[in-house]
Amino acid sequence: MRFGIIGTGTVGRTLAAKLVSLGHEVTLGSRTSDNTAANEWADRSGPYGHAGTFTQAAEFGEVVINATAGTVSLQALRLAGAEQLAGKVLVDVSNPLVFSATGQVSLEPVNTDSVGERIQREFPAARVVKALNTVNADVMVDPARLPGTHNLFIAGEDPEAKAVVRAMLVEFGWPSAAVLDLGGITAARSLEMLMPLWLDLMRHFGHVDFNYSIVTAD
Amino acid sequence: MRFGIIGTGTVGRTLAAKLVSLGHEVTLGSRTSDNTAANEWADRSGPYGHAGTFTQAAEFGEVVINATAGTVSLQALRLAGAEQLAGKVLVDVSNPLVFSATGQVSLEPVNTDSVGERIQREFPAARVVKALNTVNADVMVDPARLPGTHNLFIAGEDPEAKAVVRAMLVEFGWPSAAVLDLGGITAARSLEMLMPLWLDLMRHFGHVDFNYSIVTAD
Repeated sequence: MRFGIIGTGTVGRTLAAKLVSLGHEVTLGSRTSDNTAANEWADRSGPYGHAGTFTQAAEFGEVVINATAGTVSLQALRLAGAEQLAGKVLVDVSNPLVFSATGQVSLEPVNTDSVGERIQREFPAARVVKALNTVNADVMVDPARLPGTHNLFIAGEDPEAKAVVRAMLVEFGWPSAAVLDLGGITAARSLEMLMPLWLDLMRHFGHVDFNYSIVTAD
Repeated sequence: MRFGIIGTGTVGRTLAAKLVSLGHEVTLGSRTSDNTAANEWADRSGPYGHAGTFTQAAEFGEVVINATAGTVSLQALRLAGAEQLAGKVLVDVSNPLVFSATGQVSLEPVNTDSVGERIQREFPAARVVKALNTVNADVMVDPARLPGTHNLFIAGEDPEAKAVVRAMLVEFGWPSAAVLDLGGITAARSLEMLMPLWLDLMRHFGHVDFNYSIVTAD
């Protein structure tokens, strides 16, 4: 399968490497075609790893993954192009973290809106699925690094798109039953609003190797 | 030990009944002294269960528990009285849920403030501990109804107050190690921001018998 990844940070590069290792073909997209991180990644990733612009990545992918910071995601996806995103499964991994001068972190948008919803509104022909924004990049692609059962969440309007994302997560090593479908894209609000707890837990544990397991009575 | 509970809803009554069953003495406080729910609860709770006003409950308790809706908590605690709350451990169990006409739920305050912080700011002589707002009332007082290990979180400025709350939770049946201390009262933000996910999970499972377990690599 062909994937286009928007964003060359840790999340983008980690997902790109995992997808290539699974035999998929990936274009890692950056704002400009001379992005060092993207080109170095492509150079060492064999014939299935490519570097390109946001537009080239979006055009390339049957599935497009937004791995940019949530505060700049809309801008990045505008550069990728509505035409290139139309009909595509668009996995939104972003969190809209805003860092204040005093080091306090908040979210924007939050509460009555979310990046996931904003993307779906601005690109109505894309099939947006919120996913993977609740764990560290290493955990995303290697759930077995944590013991026992733990969960991911998906949300989006398009059941087929969610099935495609679920299949990708299963390829990453997540049991299908561990991926909880929270319904429509509005649930991106609650998933993005998990980030402050994730940051508090990071401070509490002193590392990022953790995840949420939802324990139920039945 | 003597507990004063502010609020006679399900959470207040469930906590009151548990505390009485553990041999503590409880005054369940309501806005007016003729509150039917509170008086009926006191009538069937034996000599250790009392009903009273918010002020009487706050005066009575060595530990005071805010079990009102987060959107009216400050108002209720003003009625309880700053003098009655001074020096007390004040457990804030609230969530500031706002229900829109269309059924959408949001939080107010959120993101850059929280009910826990607002209470601590307005009642600086109280020793506020955010706790228990992340689970259903039945789970609060009976963690064994869910299998395995699952977690609660506490946050507040006063380590001794947090130790008192932790001891209460251990009496409720929570292993001390399951109660994660997230630091100062600012962490009330992330704990209150968990509520939208809790609501999405309630819709997903069709019940409220669930909780978060934090899985770590170590």
